[in-house]
Amino acid sequence: MPLIGNTTYDELVIGDKATYTRTLTEDEIVLFATVTGDLNPFHLDSDFAGSSVFKERIGHGMWSGALISAAVTNILPGPGTIYLEQSLRFLQPIKISDSLVVSIEVVQKLERGRVVIACSIMNQTGEVVVDGKAKVIAPKSKIHMEKPELPKINMETSE
Amino acid sequence: MPLIGNTTYDELVIGDKATYTRTLTEDEIVLFATVTGDLNPFHLDSDFAGSSVFKERIGHGMWSGALISAAVTNILPGPGTIYLEQSLRFLQPIKISDSLVVSIEVVQKLERGRVVIACSIMNQTGEVVVDGKAKVIAPKSKIHMEKPELPKINMETSE
Repeated sequence: MPLIGNTTYDELVIGDKATYTRTLTEDEIVLFATVTGDLNPFHLDSDFAGSSVFKERIGHGMWSGALISAAVTNILPGPGTIYLEQSLRFLQPIKISDSLVVSIEVVQKLERGRVVIACSIMNQTGEVVVDGKAKVIAPKSKIHMEKPELPKINMETSE
Repeated sequence: MPLIGNTTYDELVIGDKATYTRTLTEDEIVLFATVTGDLNPFHLDSDFAGSSVFKERIGHGMWSGALISAAVTNILPGPGTIYLEQSLRFLQPIKISDSLVVSIEVVQKLERGRVVIACSIMNQTGEVVVDGKAKVIAPKSKIHMEKPELPKINMETSE
């Protein structure tokens, strides 16, 4: 079973960096729409999106925001991190099959365990598609834990 | 089939408001973790979360952010809205079975179709759990479309 660990507030150093990679799939767009109720036709309607400025369906901006929170809470500082704030700028659309690299970097250590993290997401052509800043409370205690197992998801489309 | 419509930039008036309601379920936490890879044990691990400041599992902050984007892109301005920016402050934890009301209000109309929207989420006890601002490009054209049908989701947990 793979383990995940964290970096405590005391251990964190300005300039600490981490990356997290993820590829957007069509199923993920549909699942994200289902779990949030965000039915924007740019994401779900091929005809609508195809005749728009985007020319094809795109991922939800907030899905990319969640990739950033995944990088922060899985990797740096990792498990035990408490999220306080997140800003996001959606600079370029994310298309199906885009391979994304989320990069995060500790840029400020504040009092009471607060940490500011600069965040960006780059696609496979080197474009920055999202950037922003996170403010979190970094973990006080060292944690090593098994990576939780997630269920297999099946989608039944009605006829 | 239910229809969804929008309010164009020209029609939008400062002070226009909308709400969107949603209740957090345990399945949604697990689905959100699966579709984003965000495995924070505050969301997934009852023992870990139970012995934390939260006392029980909580929802992903970015899931609540996605409820805001759902309100903006489903309702006001609605379909055809292009997201540019979102800021989020996570003020209180969201617990399983919490009934949330997302409130959004048009607070600024800028040039080139840009609109600033104030956003907040209140739980069933009247606490504001999340607030923030969205910056979007409002739709130029009137759209009425059928609400997309989403698939039924089944989760298979491995033994």
